[in-house]
Amino acid sequence: MPTPCDTLLTCDVLMTQDMARTTINDAAIAITNGTITAVGPKTELQGSFTPASHLDLGPSLVMPGLINAHTHVSMTLLRGLADDLPLMDWLTKHIFPVEQKLTPELVRLGALLGCAEMLRTGTTCFCDMYLMEAAVAEAVHQSGIRARVGEVIFAFPSPAYPDLDGALDVARGLEERWESDTRIRTAVMPHAVYTTNPDLLQRSYALAEELDVPLHIHLAESTTETAQCLEQTGQRPVAYLQDLGLLGPRTLAAHCVDLTDDEISILADSGTCVSHCPESNMKLASGFCPAQKLLDAGAMMGIGTDGACSNNNLNMFTEMGTAALVQKVHRMDPTVLRAQTVLDMATLGGAASLHWPELGSIEAGKAADLIALDLTRPNMQPMYNPASHAVYATNGGEVRLTMVEGEVLYQDGSYTRLDYPALLNEIREAAHWVQKQL
Amino acid sequence: MPTPCDTLLTCDVLMTQDMARTTINDAAIAITNGTITAVGPKTELQGSFTPASHLDLGPSLVMPGLINAHTHVSMTLLRGLADDLPLMDWLTKHIFPVEQKLTPELVRLGALLGCAEMLRTGTTCFCDMYLMEAAVAEAVHQSGIRARVGEVIFAFPSPAYPDLDGALDVARGLEERWESDTRIRTAVMPHAVYTTNPDLLQRSYALAEELDVPLHIHLAESTTETAQCLEQTGQRPVAYLQDLGLLGPRTLAAHCVDLTDDEISILADSGTCVSHCPESNMKLASGFCPAQKLLDAGAMMGIGTDGACSNNNLNMFTEMGTAALVQKVHRMDPTVLRAQTVLDMATLGGAASLHWPELGSIEAGKAADLIALDLTRPNMQPMYNPASHAVYATNGGEVRLTMVEGEVLYQDGSYTRLDYPALLNEIREAAHWVQKQL
Ligand SMILES: [Zn+2]
Ligand SMILES: [Zn+2]
Repeated sequence: MPTPCDTLLTCDVLMTQDMARTTINDAAIAITNGTITAVGPKTELQGSFTPASHLDLGPSLVMPGLINAHTHVSMTLLRGLADDLPLMDWLTKHIFPVEQKLTPELVRLGALLGCAEMLRTGTTCFCDMYLMEAAVAEAVHQSGIRARVGEVIFAFPSPAYPDLDGALDVARGLEERWESDTRIRTAVMPHAVYTTNPDLLQRSYALAEELDVPLHIHLAESTTETAQCLEQTGQRPVAYLQDLGLLGPRTLAAHCVDLTDDEISILADSGTCVSHCPESNMKLASGFCPAQKLLDAGAMMGIGTDGACSNNNLNMFTEMGTAALVQKVHRMDPTVLRAQTVLDMATLGGAASLHWPELGSIEAGKAADLIALDLTRPNMQPMYNPASHAVYATNGGEVRLTMVEGEVLYQDGSYTRLDYPALLNEIREAAHWVQKQL
Repeated sequence: MPTPCDTLLTCDVLMTQDMARTTINDAAIAITNGTITAVGPKTELQGSFTPASHLDLGPSLVMPGLINAHTHVSMTLLRGLADDLPLMDWLTKHIFPVEQKLTPELVRLGALLGCAEMLRTGTTCFCDMYLMEAAVAEAVHQSGIRARVGEVIFAFPSPAYPDLDGALDVARGLEERWESDTRIRTAVMPHAVYTTNPDLLQRSYALAEELDVPLHIHLAESTTETAQCLEQTGQRPVAYLQDLGLLGPRTLAAHCVDLTDDEISILADSGTCVSHCPESNMKLASGFCPAQKLLDAGAMMGIGTDGACSNNNLNMFTEMGTAALVQKVHRMDPTVLRAQTVLDMATLGGAASLHWPELGSIEAGKAADLIALDLTRPNMQPMYNPASHAVYATNGGEVRLTMVEGEVLYQDGSYTRLDYPALLNEIREAAHWVQKQL
């Protein structure tokens, strides 16, 4: 007796990312209430399900949606505003002056554009830290994508709060606003060791424990950060956070570039998760993250794009490729960060790092967050190994469908929830405003 | 009195890459007989030309077609066949066994797929070295793209020739076949120092002089090559080629990774051109090309993807991004290989390196080889600096039109010359053949 389901999706190739990393040709996925209820050969599922709707994707490679484990999505509004500059010039002369004048409306607009870009390039969930994050959450909600969001907490006033108490109130308010939402979760997000202080860090961690949400922070991004931390605290960043009690499975640390072998062990042994952001680390000349060593030590890792100003895109496909390539040349070993490893980081690793275990693979019981790549693109042919193609051959432009929680949000050039032409007009006006600030 | 022209192309933004690197908003380009006859504001040119056809590209960024300065285009047939392996395993166990059994028909098919990929991602000209290159030239001719092609010359028999005399005959025959063609030019292409000998190299260079075509060779790709060359000849690769008389403006050397500062000067001072292939150098863990130092020393440089097996795509947009990013982190300096520098390498630098001076910029008198990027893609918005976007924000999927010699070859998903669905079927069959060889 066939079982009803909301959607039966069929496709030429399905890369499940399940435990056995199964790939199925002529595959089908049954979806009900945003959850995957069955995965298997098309012939099998077509006989056992009576779907309300049939989504036949034909010559497509279907795979889990990618998870961007670190970004500042509203910075898409400043994409390409200034590049190729020394870090401090870039920050103090170009980025900070504009950011200080941002309004919630501009933050929301930039975030909407970033969500549109991620949906179009196959990302279904991301971890975001920014000023006035409530406005980011509104954009996330509107676009339908998933995100773990958090207000960035500095030891100085921001446009969103006057002091630490205010900042923690904002973090608490964000969690209260979204706690029953299925697509938005929050985290407490102190910015970095060099923009905070011990009291701020410990109270942030206590709040994360109280709300039972992750803590997200930039960590060990550059030798400059290390030098500054040593000068101010007498400790390197990892030891400093460890002594303050901030390391552990609850913590997701972005970058983790300037690490000693001991620090790699400390991060891995404590269960601290890592967002690896290779393109940002390269563009800002921060250094090489020892990603393979972290994995070998047992660290849980995701991959992130960082903000569009230090990248300058939010494309997780090209980020995966760069992650693999830069590690190989850094280590002078072509066998490190293999394609499957990198794909795991961008799917299962991201899901674990964001504490969202129902994401990251296409299996019965998991959320129906998936994407379809057009296999008729020349760069996808021939295909001997789908994982290799996902990491090395794609550019993200092959994405023809993006689904979150069983809902199609992007398909063949169109967004289902966004009035995209209207958004482009608003972005154009916002860009004029940005140019006037300089 | 208005002048007639074949095509008047109009667009929102034009990045000319002329001497002053002029960008024009609401621009127009007049084209006649495959040559650009005028460039300027739309309002100006619309009054002064009566075009046979009007090509209005609206919200597009038009720029010169990119030039891929080093590839083995037929290797697209082996894309993703084997990855993440030590170089010698990869070559001897996976690539060479298949290559030894290739037929001209398979070489032609792989090349057609590669040309389709390059046209779709904004490349209008490339430099290609492979076995049975006559079949590559046929594919180039069919697709309408431009290329400088050459038979790879080894010191051992290849499927295309029994010995050096035969190889040089093939090179000569290729030039005779295509010498009057406007889109295909040839070069003499000894493979590398480690697969040739002094006699082969000098006779190849003499033939290049006689035919007045460039010489293209892999050079200083890795420390392994250097060690082997030292052992066999007592010299490092650059000195060895210099003593044999092979360096100079006629020579285009691919890779140039393992270089001393003296060797950088030798290459630059001799006028030797360099094809920089960052993704291949990263994937194979060959090392970091000192690209900024080469430029500073005055070397002429283009950018290449190398073959699809060591990349695994032929996308010059993502290659430009990687070129910029990897140099910054290698040098630990965010100011090296700026966006404009990298764009120059992929356009004007490629044109000069391939000895094709009528390419590389959009100016009156130059060839009408150009591409249009869709500015409505989220990753192209907002746009403060088109050169930054071309290098850092694009992924190549934004290309909506590719024109060579005034002829549209690709537009909005369709090829004008290729029966692309039929090609995909042929590629699928060829891929089955490849899998049987292993
Ligand atoms: Zn960041
Ligand atoms: Zn090569």
